[in-house]
Amino acid sequence: MPRFFIDENALCGDVITVTGADAVHMGRSLRMREGDEVIFCRMGMEYRCVTETFTKDSVECRVLSSEPSMAEPSLRLTIYQAFPKSDKAEYIIQKCTELGAARIMFFPSRRCIVKSADKKLERWQRIAEEAAKQSGRGMIPQILAAGSFNEALSDLASQDTPLFCYENGGSRLSGVTFGATAGVMIGSEGGFDRDEADAAAAAGAEHIWLGRRILRCETAPVAVTAIIMNLSGDI
Amino acid sequence: MPRFFIDENALCGDVITVTGADAVHMGRSLRMREGDEVIFCRMGMEYRCVTETFTKDSVECRVLSSEPSMAEPSLRLTIYQAFPKSDKAEYIIQKCTELGAARIMFFPSRRCIVKSADKKLERWQRIAEEAAKQSGRGMIPQILAAGSFNEALSDLASQDTPLFCYENGGSRLSGVTFGATAGVMIGSEGGFDRDEADAAAAAGAEHIWLGRRILRCETAPVAVTAIIMNLSGDI
Repeated sequence: MPRFFIDENALCGDVITVTGADAVHMGRSLRMREGDEVIFCRMGMEYRCVTETFTKDSVECRVLSSEPSMAEPSLRLTIYQAFPKSDKAEYIIQKCTELGAARIMFFPSRRCIVKSADKKLERWQRIAEEAAKQSGRGMIPQILAAGSFNEALSDLASQDTPLFCYENGGSRLSGVTFGATAGVMIGSEGGFDRDEADAAAAAGAEHIWLGRRILRCETAPVAVTAIIMNLSGDI
Repeated sequence: MPRFFIDENALCGDVITVTGADAVHMGRSLRMREGDEVIFCRMGMEYRCVTETFTKDSVECRVLSSEPSMAEPSLRLTIYQAFPKSDKAEYIIQKCTELGAARIMFFPSRRCIVKSADKKLERWQRIAEEAAKQSGRGMIPQILAAGSFNEALSDLASQDTPLFCYENGGSRLSGVTFGATAGVMIGSEGGFDRDEADAAAAAGAEHIWLGRRILRCETAPVAVTAIIMNLSGDI
């Protein structure tokens, strides 16, 4: 059955109104007609619907049933990634979305070469949407860019389980007990400096050690997301 | 201290003779002189050495001490990956090397588009060497190409813990007890067909399920390597 992501405001009572490219896609490409069934995903919920009215630029569908998306992990994980170089961010977004991250927030750290998302945020959000569709997610992860290390750190500190990956040592991921929400802060190519590690600890983030091998900055978030989804019983 | 990988036969008694590019690199680029210390890695062992004799194309070094490389995982993991499309193999090799795989064997499966390594094996081995150096591995993972699914399967069956990733279901990785050697077989873009899954089970490989989201064929081996290294206490 066709699956589409819809905006929060596309649902009104038990009616979902699809407009734009998806409406065109349903009518023209998929040649759907009144009475066909379709699934819409919205904020981790899946709505099984039947199409009712096709206009030239919208489709009205009635909700038959709704349930939490089975593809969504119970743990709500945010990856906090210091801006990496070149197109590594796109790779991180694609893989962490497939693996189940709920949010990915990029931020500048002392040793970052790249210091901002520049104009890339829209493109990054589209990459998350593509990866979410391809992997069957029930939601599209939010891609965010913090203006400063401290802004990202205070977001991290608001998670039930705030973690900070530090090459100079810390606990193993296996020893962590995960709450409903978790966040992991990961450095750029140059890693974190001591002040940043101390600030993270002071903010309540547990230092995590990923072992003796040096992981590239685009490998660490993917490995961490896979391991945490496994530890929380999702993979 | 400088680190180099050396061939098995470079060690004779307590003398290591370096030739070729590494010898040139030690003399010209690093400007090393008699009495300088250097570390050589060979088959998961690290040899702390002192340089003794420089000729124009070789360097003789005496072994001061040797110990198993701390960067090498205790579990010897082989990833069996059905030939992926485009340059995904290079990505899989780089990431699985960083994460600690000991061997990566590519093989053709029923649904593979690409059916052989063609002339890429040498290039792939170089990518493994680069990733091994960059991540501080104590060995360079072996990159292999099997001629058939059955050849790869019999190699898998020889592992203490043979696993087969199957999208139609199986055990969770968390439930697996790992022996000294483990192998995980992973499909290409199209996944495995039923006969292949049955053959793997018949060969003694446990079916493993990676959860409800669809992972790209280049994401699965990286996620699996990270998770297994975590479960075996290495990450």
